Amino acid sequence: MSGIVVINPNSNPAVTAGFDEALGPLRRPGAPAIVCETLAEGPFGIETQAHVDGVAIPLARLVASRPEADAFVIACYSDPGLFVCREATAKPVFGIAECGLLTAMARGQRFGVIAIARRSIARHIRYMRQMGIIDRLANERPLDMSVAETASGEGALARMISVGTELRDRDGADVIVMGCAGMARHRRALEAALGVPVIDPVQAAVTMALGAVAFA
Amino acid sequence: MSGIVVINPNSNPAVTAGFDEALGPLRRPGAPAIVCETLAEGPFGIETQAHVDGVAIPLARLVASRPEADAFVIACYSDPGLFVCREATAKPVFGIAECGLLTAMARGQRFGVIAIARRSIARHIRYMRQMGIIDRLANERPLDMSVAETASGEGALARMISVGTELRDRDGADVIVMGCAGMARHRRALEAALGVPVIDPVQAAVTMALGAVAFA
Amino acid sequence: MSGIVVINPNSNPAVTAGFDEALGPLRRPGAPAIVCETLAEGPFGIETQAHVDGVAIPLARLVASRPEADAFVIACYSDPGLFVCREATAKPVFGIAECGLLTAMARGQRFGVIAIARRSIARHIRYMRQMGIIDRLANERPLDMSVAETASGEGALARMISVGTELRDRDGADVIVMGCAGMARHRRALEAALGVPVIDPVQAAVTMALGAVAFA
Amino acid sequence: MSGIVVINPNSNPAVTAGFDEALGPLRRPGAPAIVCETLAEGPFGIETQAHVDGVAIPLARLVASRPEADAFVIACYSDPGLFVCREATAKPVFGIAECGLLTAMARGQRFGVIAIARRSIARHIRYMRQMGIIDRLANERPLDMSVAETASGEGALARMISVGTELRDRDGADVIVMGCAGMARHRRALEAALGVPVIDPVQAAVTMALGAVAFA
Amino acid sequence: MSGIVVINPNSNPAVTAGFDEALGPLRRPGAPAIVCETLAEGPFGIETQAHVDGVAIPLARLVASRPEADAFVIACYSDPGLFVCREATAKPVFGIAECGLLTAMARGQRFGVIAIARRSIARHIRYMRQMGIIDRLANERPLDMSVAETASGEGALARMISVGTELRDRDGADVIVMGCAGMARHRRALEAALGVPVIDPVQAAVTMALGAVAFA
Amino acid sequence: MSGIVVINPNSNPAVTAGFDEALGPLRRPGAPAIVCETLAEGPFGIETQAHVDGVAIPLARLVASRPEADAFVIACYSDPGLFVCREATAKPVFGIAECGLLTAMARGQRFGVIAIARRSIARHIRYMRQMGIIDRLANERPLDMSVAETASGEGALARMISVGTELRDRDGADVIVMGCAGMARHRRALEAALGVPVIDPVQAAVTMALGAVAFA
Repeated sequence: MSGIVVINPNSNPAVTAGFDEALGPLRRPGAPAIVCETLAEGPFGIETQAHVDGVAIPLARLVASRPEADAFVIACYSDPGLFVCREATAKPVFGIAECGLLTAMARGQRFGVIAIARRSIARHIRYMRQMGIIDRLANERPLDMSVAETASGEGALARMISVGTELRDRDGADVIVMGCAGMARHRRALEAALGVPVIDPVQAAVTMALGAVAFA
Repeated sequence: MSGIVVINPNSNPAVTAGFDEALGPLRRPGAPAIVCETLAEGPFGIETQAHVDGVAIPLARLVASRPEADAFVIACYSDPGLFVCREATAKPVFGIAECGLLTAMARGQRFGVIAIARRSIARHIRYMRQMGIIDRLANERPLDMSVAETASGEGALARMISVGTELRDRDGADVIVMGCAGMARHRRALEAALGVPVIDPVQAAVTMALGAVAFA
Repeated sequence: MSGIVVINPNSNPAVTAGFDEALGPLRRPGAPAIVCETLAEGPFGIETQAHVDGVAIPLARLVASRPEADAFVIACYSDPGLFVCREATAKPVFGIAECGLLTAMARGQRFGVIAIARRSIARHIRYMRQMGIIDRLANERPLDMSVAETASGEGALARMISVGTELRDRDGADVIVMGCAGMARHRRALEAALGVPVIDPVQAAVTMALGAVAFA
Repeated sequence: MSGIVVINPNSNPAVTAGFDEALGPLRRPGAPAIVCETLAEGPFGIETQAHVDGVAIPLARLVASRPEADAFVIACYSDPGLFVCREATAKPVFGIAECGLLTAMARGQRFGVIAIARRSIARHIRYMRQMGIIDRLANERPLDMSVAETASGEGALARMISVGTELRDRDGADVIVMGCAGMARHRRALEAALGVPVIDPVQAAVTMALGAVAFA
Repeated sequence: MSGIVVINPNSNPAVTAGFDEALGPLRRPGAPAIVCETLAEGPFGIETQAHVDGVAIPLARLVASRPEADAFVIACYSDPGLFVCREATAKPVFGIAECGLLTAMARGQRFGVIAIARRSIARHIRYMRQMGIIDRLANERPLDMSVAETASGEGALARMISVGTELRDRDGADVIVMGCAGMARHRRALEAALGVPVIDPVQAAVTMALGAVAFA
Repeated sequence: MSGIVVINPNSNPAVTAGFDEALGPLRRPGAPAIVCETLAEGPFGIETQAHVDGVAIPLARLVASRPEADAFVIACYSDPGLFVCREATAKPVFGIAECGLLTAMARGQRFGVIAIARRSIARHIRYMRQMGIIDRLANERPLDMSVAETASGEGALARMISVGTELRDRDGADVIVMGCAGMARHRRALEAALGVPVIDPVQAAVTMALGAVAFA
């Protein structure tokens, strides 16, 4: 089936369902289809480097098995398997961390990143160096919450507002990147509370994929 | 009228018409409208720094006069007036140089830029330093053609292929950015000839604008 | 008339008079004349991006209308119109932000910048990235005062000393740049209080202009 | 068994035997043992991103299965699995690309890298950006030979001398890194021919591992 | 006499004796000898720029007078005379600051540096910029102790743990460099207390020298 | 005696006399005196790292022996002893390489440097990295002439024009720095031939010193 295949590298279908629903506004008659899938082989959450590296080859296999797709999005903020997936297909492959950060650079001068866990930050900073954009980083700060807590209601939003406020006021961020595939439901409220653009990385990546497909 | 307003800062309606037509694939029922306008006060081409700086305030005025618009795109590869337009509205404003380069960074490791004129290159390099992305630049090379020649037929394409081949083979670029708002008609043929992604910056910026509006 | 033309892009003659007087030590018999002018079209203060961009073309016109001048200085810490003025004349044109920062780099390892307003900082940081010198920035901190307050007496100096002390002790700055054309009267006292070099950007730029003219 | 475990991620035992023999000078009575192993699951050569990503988890498993080892070296110039291996053990884990480049930085001002294949260069450059050392890169140039050809006799050396000479004379490199685990036998001859230090990355990494173990 | 000559540029024999003893684990039968010397002309401590520059030529003379040596290490964290010593001999010369920092980059993503004195920090930062590695610096913080105090017992260690904890928790360092030649005795205890790798720069440099000699 | 003391670190009085004469345009009634001195202990030319490091302490002694001076300039393009001289006096001390490069950054976007000897280039590049300005370097190219040849007549100028043309046309430099204290006599002719600003570093540094003294 043609269109954009968005792959959740973890095996938690609730996460997939969450961003699937949030992508509604990009679904239009005649526009490329947007199909969200859950990687069967994925762990329940991508929390460690082993999780990141463990899904690379399964992702590439999944990508290679969809020759009719027009573009792919890897929907995990560590961009697992991004380069091997690009090797596995001639179609464009987008990573949500890469696209989230690049999109933020079109909205502000210095981005702040909200991470779920403190231990992911070193990996993310390494990735921003790899991207050659570290001079645009204001800071990355963790929620220090579990993924489950993050996906929940008001407590999660309150914590995001608190961390986002620090990024804005202490670190000088004028745009915020949500460092997780499962935070979309809080985007609008967070943006309203902070008064600066807030980027959901899945939405950013699927948008870029849509453009690549539209003009292919 | 709501939707995305794409402004051609030069007063050449043929350029506006060119990218207007090329944006067709993003126009879908229910999707944000995409309206292309020509800046009445603009010079016939944006070739000098005086042209760039001369349209900044007129662009901001135009932006401020469209309170019902959802997003704006400044469709000139020098991103004239980008920051003053952002001050003139609370809506997102995108520059095609910025978005073209950022989109290229999601498709390859080192981008090459095709400039029309040699004398624009120093300005572009200054801008890439400002964006903090200079480590991703493979090289920028000029066509050494007039804008009129560039917009024309096979001769222009042949020259683009020649310059693009140098960027790819001598400079190591694995993605190419077309450094002009009026090159869209050659994008597919250039990409086919070079075998690496070729980014049209108007398409890249309108895509990002579409995402910003869709998820607002 | 030959010599160095120093242009205050805002229309506040008190600011012009302030730096005019402070430039006395560079006026010597036989040395290039230093003439300070106020841009008639300028706003009363350069506080917004619209102010910055709005004076660019008027500045270029003024520069172009002085063919007999030997060099120009744009005396506003946002360096408005610097590049278009350079295009408008074959004579050297200096911006005070550029020259203030470069001069600081000859006096210390990491510079701190005192801004008047918090909202200018993002613009200044963008400019330091454009200059390719962001690795030398210790920090920029705002006075959070109006221009009028800054130009006044002891209260302004006390606030500058407070902000300068934070730049020196918390941020590690060993040289301070005054981020405004109207702070010259406080330079010596601030330097004495802080014990590190303090650079007035108008003085820095006129000095460089003097050299360019002397050796032309 | 205690000591340093050097793992060849490809399953070509000749490569393992080659660097095993070349490591002789670091084997001393009382010094940490140096044990070279071949990853059973590895492909015959690491040439693609799929090869790189495919060995990450097997490498981590191997590392985790050697609790008595004192340090590990991943002996492939793409540093496959480096970060997941570091997560799999509390012992130090070294990558030969990382150590080869860092060691070169202690011997010269700008390093040149000899790659086997042209298509690896983008990946290597991405990695040097990730390391934050791209300002020290003179250039990377490919041998455009197969791994088998590289490991062979005089033809390989002659080609290395040719490429190394270009790195030194055209690109300004004053130290050369051999971008492969299987080039050790040519190191001395290449260094003699070029007159600048030539770094074998396996030797560089095992040296660092030796120090880490000696002082643990 | 052949082997590695480690030179203490200050004339305090207790410092020399300290690292001489700490280098024991690298001394093995058949391995290159490691000979530690004290520079007779050195000041009692290297604390000022005059101290640093004053020992450069004496160090080069000492290096030139040992034609039979196989490699040299300059054992002062300011790397005095490193480049002139490299000119004075064809043998490899290593500086402990350079090697300590490079070795840290093989153990963590962002290094923190413990300086003895606050006034050395600007010099060290200048040096890290020179090395092109400033993007890997988390922070450098001073002990604010005298060298004598640093070399002593538990009080020094307690202060190092306190400063190291700030580097780890406030600044995000995941590896620590001891910014002095005389701290080796505290390395293990500091590493145990902090839970991240701690690099002694003399040990790092002599390790690299050992590798260079072993494979010469 | 008060004023600016310009020190030639080599003992060739012809070089001192050359820039002394060229500084005439900065000497004005009432302006700070400009006194040029030759370092007695200096070698006849500063060509090696040993020359650079060998004059550092003598320069600092000379600086310390002039308490009545208002500022100092070290007139050798390697900026020998710059930091130790700054420690030896509370007065400003300027290096001609530093000031030449910074002044170039106020005149163009990417500077090219003309070196006398090829072997100085690695040292100069290291210094530009230390200054944090390497992103502004277009290229540095050598004359491959002796200092004596450089100081001479038309042959030297012709070679400078040839190298400057390569810097401008191949490397994209839009401003040229003369990488030697003894090239002043060719500045105007070179600038006229190349059509881009040419910076003499002694003139740049003495200009900055003049400003520092005028406003002290």
